Parts: sequence; C-alpha cells; structure tokens
Amino acid sequence: MRTRAAVALEAGKPLEVMEVNLDGPRAGEVLVEIKATGICHTDEFTLSGADPEGLFPAILGHEGAGVVLEVGPGVTSLQPGDHVIPLYTAECRECEYCLNPKTNLCQKVRATQGQGLMPDGSSRFSMLDGTPILHYMGCSTFANHTVVPEVSLAKVRKDAPFDKICYIGCGVTTGIGAVIYTAKVEIGSRAIVFGLGGIGLNVIQGLRLAGADQIVGVDINPGKVEMAKRFGMTDFVNPKEVSGDLVGHLVELTGGGADYTFDATGNVDVMRTALEACHKGWGESIIIGVAPAGAEISTRPFQLVTGRSWRGTAFGGARGRTDVPQIVDWYMDGKIEIDPMITHTLTLDNINEGFDLMHRGESIRSVVVY
Amino acid sequence: MRTRAAVALEAGKPLEVMEVNLDGPRAGEVLVEIKATGICHTDEFTLSGADPEGLFPAILGHEGAGVVLEVGPGVTSLQPGDHVIPLYTAECRECEYCLNPKTNLCQKVRATQGQGLMPDGSSRFSMLDGTPILHYMGCSTFANHTVVPEVSLAKVRKDAPFDKICYIGCGVTTGIGAVIYTAKVEIGSRAIVFGLGGIGLNVIQGLRLAGADQIVGVDINPGKVEMAKRFGMTDFVNPKEVSGDLVGHLVELTGGGADYTFDATGNVDVMRTALEACHKGWGESIIIGVAPAGAEISTRPFQLVTGRSWRGTAFGGARGRTDVPQIVDWYMDGKIEIDPMITHTLTLDNINEGFDLMHRGESIRSVVVY
Ligand SMILES: [Zn+2]
Ligand SMILES: [Zn+2]
Ligand SMILES: [Zn+2]
Ligand SMILES: [Zn+2]
Repeated sequence: MRTRAAVALEAGKPLEVMEVNLDGPRAGEVLVEIKATGICHTDEFTLSGADPEGLFPAILGHEGAGVVLEVGPGVTSLQPGDHVIPLYTAECRECEYCLNPKTNLCQKVRATQGQGLMPDGSSRFSMLDGTPILHYMGCSTFANHTVVPEVSLAKVRKDAPFDKICYIGCGVTTGIGAVIYTAKVEIGSRAIVFGLGGIGLNVIQGLRLAGADQIVGVDINPGKVEMAKRFGMTDFVNPKEVSGDLVGHLVELTGGGADYTFDATGNVDVMRTALEACHKGWGESIIIGVAPAGAEISTRPFQLVTGRSWRGTAFGGARGRTDVPQIVDWYMDGKIEIDPMITHTLTLDNINEGFDLMHRGESIRSVVVY
Repeated sequence: MRTRAAVALEAGKPLEVMEVNLDGPRAGEVLVEIKATGICHTDEFTLSGADPEGLFPAILGHEGAGVVLEVGPGVTSLQPGDHVIPLYTAECRECEYCLNPKTNLCQKVRATQGQGLMPDGSSRFSMLDGTPILHYMGCSTFANHTVVPEVSLAKVRKDAPFDKICYIGCGVTTGIGAVIYTAKVEIGSRAIVFGLGGIGLNVIQGLRLAGADQIVGVDINPGKVEMAKRFGMTDFVNPKEVSGDLVGHLVELTGGGADYTFDATGNVDVMRTALEACHKGWGESIIIGVAPAGAEISTRPFQLVTGRSWRGTAFGGARGRTDVPQIVDWYMDGKIEIDPMITHTLTLDNINEGFDLMHRGESIRSVVVY
C-alpha cells in the first residue's frame, strides 16, 4: 500500500512529507493506522545528527496512537479495530529480561530495531522509486500507516482520545514511570525534579500521584513555574537566584536532602547535583535525561558510601503492554492530566513547525493529528 | 583508673605503648575491658596522616571485643560481665536514621565521635600528665580498657572467642553485610568481587552464605587465589593476564554481566570497572572501599539509564546491636569462617609489628590479644 509520511532524508535537514510504499505485515507484525503522534526531543536528537546511532533515510516518530488495520500470521493478541500505542521498548514476556522483575528492557527485537529494521532484518517502508526507508525505534509514527511487531504494541481502551494518549507512548510514561516503576516512591516522600520541561512535568505529576509530601522543581526558567505548580510542584528553585551552594540550599529546603531526585535535563553537571542533593543514608537519584555522546557523570564515592544510590531509567521502567493501558486508564479517570501539556496541534504537512516550536522553547508537546 | 594503651601521638609515627588515665563511665556510657582487637586498614589510614579528619593524640582501634566492667547511670541494656563488641556505627534505635529501614547510619553519637569525644563532648582518656587523649571511631580498642556509649556496644554470647570475634567489629561485618544487608543478594546470583584482601574474602564468604552461583574474584596478586577459593571463589581473574578489555572479559565470564559487583579496593578506576561489569537491566555495584581524599568516580550516564545501579555501603549496612550478635552466632555455628583470616596474633607491646605486616602485605588480619 501507499501512505503519507514525513521522511528524514538526512541529518540536519527538515523532514520531507511524501507518499511512500508500505509492505503489509509479515509473521508477528501488525499494520497500524496512526491517528496522532507527539514530537519528542529524541526525534529531534536523531534528526539533528547528534545521535551517533542515527540512520537515514528513516521515518522518525515514536510517540503515537492508532488503530490496528491488519495482523500478520501468528499474531494472537491483537485484531483489526483494536486501539494501540506503539512501544519503542517492547514487552515480549518471554526473554531473559521480561522474565526478570527488575527490568523492563525487553531484548526480543532490540538488535534489529537499533538498525532501523523489523525483526526479520528488513524494512517495510520504501520510496516510490524502491529505495528502502528505515524504521525508527520500532515505531515510525511520522507515517500515517506503519508496521510494528506485535510485542511492541500496547492495546488500550477505545474511548481514549488519540491526540492525547499518544503522549503516553513516551513522555508521560517516562516521567510518571520513573517515579512509580523505577524509584517506587513512597507516600510522604520528599523529592526534587531537575528540569521542568515535558518529562519534568510528568515526573511531578507522578510524584503527586504517589503521594509525595514535598515536590521541589528546579529550573533556570521561571516561566515554567505556573505549569509545574499546576501539576503538583510545591517549591520552586531557580539556581540563578541561589547565592552560594545549590546542593546545600536544596538539602536545607528538603530537611536534610531529598528521598528521591530526578534529572530530566540530560546535563551531567545537573546529574551530579541531583545525586548530592539526596538525603544521606537513603536518598536515590534517578537519571532520566539523555546526555550528549561521551559526557560522563562524576562524584566522590563518599556520596554513595554514605547511603545515596545512583540509578537510571528508560521508558520509566514501564513494561509497555502491561503498564501503558493502565496509564491510559489513569488519564481517563482523571488521576493524571495530559491535555494542558499538549500545547500545539499540527497536521503532518506542517510537522517541521513542531520542531521549530521545540527549538524556540515555545511548546511543551506538539502533536500531529492525521 | 589507669590502663595500658598504644597511643597515636602524631601522624606518621609508630604507636607508643604507655600507661594512661581512664575516667569511669558517665551517664549512658560503659567501661569495657578489651580482650582482643584487630588492626584494620582504617587505623593505618588515620595513623599515616592520609585521613584528612584524623586527630591526635588519639587511641586508635575499632575492631575489638571484651567484657563490660562497669556501667554508667541510665545504662539499661548491659551489665558487668556481659561480652560486647564495640561499634563504630552506633544503633540507638530512636534517631531518624535508626527508624528508617533503608539505612544503618545512626546519627546519635556521630558528631562527637567524629571529634574524638564522648557524646557529652569530653574525653575519658588522658596522659599521666593530664593532657587529654582523643577517642577514635567511638571505640579506641588499642587500650586494654575503654569507655564506650551504650548505643555503641553489641552484646554477644559468652562462649565466643574474643581473639576471633573481634574481627566481626569491622572487617567481617563490612564484607558479609555488603552482600546480605546492602545488596540483599539472592540465591543463584552471579557476582564479582574486586580486591581479595580481608574485606574481599568476607564478601566472598557472604556470597557463599547467600547462595550465589558464581563468585568471581579479581586481583592482580595471584597469591590470593588459594585463600579466596577456600572462602567460596569460583572463578579468578587477574587483570594483568587479560588481553583486551577487562569489562568485556568479565561480562562474558558472567554470561552477560554480574548481578552484583563489589569494590573492595578503594581505587576509583576499579569502581568504574565494577559498575560497568554489571548486567544490563539489573546489575548493582556496591562500593565498599574508601577512596583517597578528592578522588572521584565517573562513568557514562548510559550505564545507569540501561539499568545498572551504583551504591555504597558502610559497616556492611549492618545495624550493629541487632546484626553483630547474629553474625557471632553464624561464626559459632560454622556458617562463616574467621580463623584462617587471623594470620597473626600479637601483644600490645608489639602492635606496631601488625602495621608492618600490613604494609608488607603479609597479613590478612593481625589481632592484638591483651
Ligand atoms: Zn520520546
Ligand atoms: Zn522480552
Ligand atoms: Zn575497620
Ligand atoms: Zn540511631
């Protein structure tokens, strides 16, 4: 079949919207009509050329929601008409990782996914002249139709709006999941969130959901305060307005250090501050942000020997097929909010405007509706 | 009263054995006759002058065992004749830390202990000319008699030999505890221990006790192999004999990386190797060793984002009054071994020989018997 897609032809260039060929689903694969997709910083990271593993030409996008149109041989858990969210972290429920309750990093389709291919080592997308186009993060939601492995699709309820729940495909789950699945924050905890962009806001509402008593937001942009308060921030700290040591200030503000801190900046110096602002004895710092290639985190080992832990999270520690449908329920039940974070809605034809809004810092999340 | 002690008069000089004055126990304090004491690297670290927090003159030693002679006002949990092990990490059972199940770092007497003083801010030791002598780590077991806060004494069974269980006051508990209390290693785990000195050997026997399937020891000295095997090491790796990448070698040897790694070297480069040799998704690295002042650990945050955790431990995460008596039971029941690690027994008069043996790498543990 043919479909319309925004294709990343090469690094550093805008996407080009065009007709492309899409082969039907093979064994274990599913054809999905994408109804909406968010534009995430990771798409921008790859498109910019900064991602050392970026491959071109490719169809980016990994934060979508849509409807199953057709299933390939052997697919048993989905059927045409099901509503789904594609997962860049699969959940096969049978690999060594899926069977270990300590991780969500399913390896079933990882190797081929990293090469921009389906599990059988081929691509379903091609130019009209036959040139293959690579998949991206196993999702490629910047196409109106895409083919995704069955193990990379979360089946969700049919009454949830695509243009909101698409955000659960990455940002919402990453932020909320870091709190709930990775840190396992307890009721009454004190927490600090570094970076009040989309991920940071979702960490904040995750902390509110988990019953944290104190939720400190840290950002150099005071323009972020109003929205962060709306999502549950109790205290704001602007590092530019702190005279003296930021760690000392945060430790004092949290009565000895935070039980949990979250880095949503990707800046390795901030990651160090986040660790050191943890409470002696039990504070845990969770790295969410993606650092520039080659950047390293550092601290004195004394910080760890005196009881702080340094950890990280990918996709919020969520097991997508199991956890994403529950997060959709939380949204539909009003336990979490998404609507205020979708600041811009675009069509596929003006998808590049979404990247411009991101560069200018004007959007929290832009969503393309097909 | 008077007692005999090995006094550290100044950094970098041998200890001087002499008669000293010892005041009786005040409220909440206990007079203990020390029967035996180990000589630990931490004593050496302070005596050498490398410890930036070292204070002189002081009576070092923090790995002892003895008998209660007298209790001060208000002491309720101990009475004369009780056998005890002094604790450099107290357990008051009422501070914010003791009441938090995530930590063992009781803060009750920490501030004064760090200054070489009893909780009331004074010292019980003095020279015969009246010059005060400082306490050390709340223990000062290099004196035949010492005064210790009640909250810093573990009461142990009376049939356990002092010259062996003194080692439970630091090295044994630090190593075994890192496995059991900090890492909480599960049956069937694969682990790597870096550094096969006294702490490393105790980590190894802790792993055996916890039912680990694979216990890899890493050391540049092949002379450590025989003893490490005796305590449960299943595989030995000499980094000098590995051609190519040590992390890659260890990951392959452990079938994808270790579930748990332990640094018992204090070398920050080794700490990085220990983290990176952990299994993706769930591996945890525990820092036990004390690094040189100012040294820093580093890694790429990607290591954490892909599921490895970096943690540390002090006194093996043990709550001394609760856990030390149990470890004494394990020793008496033959669940753990101590005797082969006590390689040298000395008198107080030749205590400096114990430091010489340590410097020359000839001892695992030297014990002074009074
Ligand atoms: Zn994303
Ligand atoms: Zn899997
Ligand atoms: Zn010690
Ligand atoms: Zn306490």
